[in-house]
Amino acid sequence: MKERMNHTLLCDFYELTMGNGYFQTGHADQICYFDIFFRTVPDGGGFAIAAGLAQAIDYIQRLHFDEEDIAFLRQKEVFCPEFLDYLKDFRFTGDIWAVPEGTPIFPKEPILTVRAPAIEAQFVETFLLLCLNHQSLIATKSNRIVRAAQGRPVSEFGSRRAQGADGAILGARASYIAGCAGTACTQADQLYGAPAGGTMAHSWVQMFPDELTAFKTYCKLYPNSATLLVDTFNVLKSGVPNAIRAFQEVLLPMGITKCAIRLDSGDLAYLSQKAREMLDAAGLTECKIVASNSLDEYIIQDLLLQGAQIDSFGVGERLITSKSEPVFGGVYKLVAIEDTNGTIIPKIKISENPAKITNPHFKKVYRLYEKESGKAFADLVTLHSETIDESKPLELFDPDATWKRKTFTGFTARELLVPIFQGGKLVYQQPGMEEIRAYCAEQIDLLWEEVKRFENPHNYYVDLSQKLWAIKQDLLKRQGEE
Amino acid sequence: MKERMNHTLLCDFYELTMGNGYFQTGHADQICYFDIFFRTVPDGGGFAIAAGLAQAIDYIQRLHFDEEDIAFLRQKEVFCPEFLDYLKDFRFTGDIWAVPEGTPIFPKEPILTVRAPAIEAQFVETFLLLCLNHQSLIATKSNRIVRAAQGRPVSEFGSRRAQGADGAILGARASYIAGCAGTACTQADQLYGAPAGGTMAHSWVQMFPDELTAFKTYCKLYPNSATLLVDTFNVLKSGVPNAIRAFQEVLLPMGITKCAIRLDSGDLAYLSQKAREMLDAAGLTECKIVASNSLDEYIIQDLLLQGAQIDSFGVGERLITSKSEPVFGGVYKLVAIEDTNGTIIPKIKISENPAKITNPHFKKVYRLYEKESGKAFADLVTLHSETIDESKPLELFDPDATWKRKTFTGFTARELLVPIFQGGKLVYQQPGMEEIRAYCAEQIDLLWEEVKRFENPHNYYVDLSQKLWAIKQDLLKRQGEE
Repeated sequence: MKERMNHTLLCDFYELTMGNGYFQTGHADQICYFDIFFRTVPDGGGFAIAAGLAQAIDYIQRLHFDEEDIAFLRQKEVFCPEFLDYLKDFRFTGDIWAVPEGTPIFPKEPILTVRAPAIEAQFVETFLLLCLNHQSLIATKSNRIVRAAQGRPVSEFGSRRAQGADGAILGARASYIAGCAGTACTQADQLYGAPAGGTMAHSWVQMFPDELTAFKTYCKLYPNSATLLVDTFNVLKSGVPNAIRAFQEVLLPMGITKCAIRLDSGDLAYLSQKAREMLDAAGLTECKIVASNSLDEYIIQDLLLQGAQIDSFGVGERLITSKSEPVFGGVYKLVAIEDTNGTIIPKIKISENPAKITNPHFKKVYRLYEKESGKAFADLVTLHSETIDESKPLELFDPDATWKRKTFTGFTARELLVPIFQGGKLVYQQPGMEEIRAYCAEQIDLLWEEVKRFENPHNYYVDLSQKLWAIKQDLLKRQGEE
Repeated sequence: MKERMNHTLLCDFYELTMGNGYFQTGHADQICYFDIFFRTVPDGGGFAIAAGLAQAIDYIQRLHFDEEDIAFLRQKEVFCPEFLDYLKDFRFTGDIWAVPEGTPIFPKEPILTVRAPAIEAQFVETFLLLCLNHQSLIATKSNRIVRAAQGRPVSEFGSRRAQGADGAILGARASYIAGCAGTACTQADQLYGAPAGGTMAHSWVQMFPDELTAFKTYCKLYPNSATLLVDTFNVLKSGVPNAIRAFQEVLLPMGITKCAIRLDSGDLAYLSQKAREMLDAAGLTECKIVASNSLDEYIIQDLLLQGAQIDSFGVGERLITSKSEPVFGGVYKLVAIEDTNGTIIPKIKISENPAKITNPHFKKVYRLYEKESGKAFADLVTLHSETIDESKPLELFDPDATWKRKTFTGFTARELLVPIFQGGKLVYQQPGMEEIRAYCAEQIDLLWEEVKRFENPHNYYVDLSQKLWAIKQDLLKRQGEE
């Protein structure tokens, strides 16, 4: 098993100075609740996809300071010796709830909640955010690209442009969860089972005396998976004709009719149509056309609108960095503390910017599905102590425009946040990659088409229960008076 | 020492299928030359900064397939058994030249050259590109932000929004090379000595009964490094007045006048000016103002133009992902092979897109400095066998507009590519982080201001020697005739 570096010290330094502060001021055991949520969907989309939980779990399980870490912290000369001693046995002992990977998620609802003593709950902020922000970003982007391809396979090709090794490997993982058919990244296959595949580089063609020799050699070596890169010299004058000859001279005599060419530059709509004509005229109707070259959901959509004859896509840098919007803005906010009796005291963060005001308290999220269509129509954020009675009409209202009210009947409610850790123990049975991938596809199918539009999608409802809304208003009012 | 995961299998799968192909067709020992170069500077800037070489070196040194890797490849059922056997002892045995980290670099010049047997040279493509692309991207972006701050310290704060753990840690490393004063990422300090620091989160303020108590507690704990976050409730009504009280009641009696506040939301220009007035009126003239909240070079430039009273900046997501342009487009192209006599045969890649045509041959890059000013005025790409005689006038010409010629005298020439590996052995004495950082600053100082403009910078000359230009034209002509 490939061992990942221990990332206990991948924390913002202030997690440690605050931890030392809680330790010295008697707040170490103060039970706190923190939520992870995000405020806007990247690329103006209608929903995001949660991913990265598996790596967050791995982090929590491996969390510990070794001697080298403590020696490093000691020489910073800002921590008291007792705190450094305390870190020697530091483990995560709290509870975590999270939405399963592959779940469509919406702004302002908790996607992960931590309940733990203050130092622990504070400490895990940076890495938990990093995990969920990165993979949710790439999963969300990949799914847009997969949907643009309308059923044609999309392969992730971006390792060389990724932001670091984890960017490549875990980006490929996230893209597979979100529907990519495979990846070029061999290590992502080894570690996560995202099927690795590939074609050839221009250097293969250049290595041989001429293009035809390069193509024929490749067909002989890989008769069952020959995808020839046809743009090293000139696609229509040399690449496609040489590919046709190679297929005819090597593959057809072997009875093989399945093959492919790859276009990696130029006008992909025009070249793919011309190449299709040439291949068909040569009887190679089963030859597929693969396209790559700085693609994303917008370009793929345009190419298909223009009648491009492309059967599958290789997508690199714009997927693996989510180039058009490379940041997923998940945040980690204190929402409650417990007093010594275990009573939950909700906390709120006001802001100069109203969009940054948090939803207080220990909460649950219910996803509501219409019984008739099976489609999801709203998420309802409630107090953790609330339950929804599916047999009774449910009134929802817009938390920002409370006169907008609607009553629903004939629905089912599903809790989104599931227990992951309890008392520091992993209680979540982790699904395999194929299961996550299937769940993701299935859940996206339950969203209305209007929510899936790339531009100006329908605003999916994320409402607050009456009780939660009242508590929030009360906290806002009290804060305003102070 | 924290061990990084072995990333031998972080390769595009086609490196392996091509390797297997070279192996089976007798090309395994064919000596090849590959160049890494890039085509455009991110954000329309005038230069980029090379970074990531240290991690590339580490990768090359650790390159090997363990049994688990070979077992994984075997079950893919595409590689011949002899090739899998060959991989057991696979090591990098070739030569590598590269520009040192921290060097300003320009489009279309080689920044790294590999000379090695075909399979090895091909295999390292993905990871070498990933290393240099990622860190050069972040170094380039960070330096823009540092220059915008005009001498005010910039700290890297982006771990939670980074694209994976390496994105955070190595991004912090690259930002430190490029001039950031420090980072929030503790592990980047531990591994690379980029000084980690931090302030407090909103949760610290929320954890106490009121803001003043939170502030006073923090000042007592960290009297010598108290930076109070003043926007949890209301900056001017509550945050700044409470900070002033905490400083006056806790720090001043201890004789401490150095302290700071941090603004993390709202109009930073307005709030910083008002806060400055309030702090000065309270006699806290040595209190610094730190600002954060989705900053980048453009916002910092604007804030300073508007008279913002900000002494230092914390920059997060827009630095650590290079948000405005999150891809550095370095490519890896075959430029020559050797025949059995060791004669170098230059190779070129034509393209439908003229900008994608490569510079063939085994090459050197000279940076030319004016003797009088010391400033760099051009880079000259030559055959590897060429030398420049500084005592003679040198005629340069635009390779795309050859009638544009100019003769230079009174210059010095410095070779940019230095030997890193020879015959698989590391021959490069790796500089420490402080040395790289100082070299970077010094080299940027030798660029003209016109090259450093954020928008429409002067186009720094990267010219070809007469000999190299003639060989390229000849190859283009021959390719066109085929």
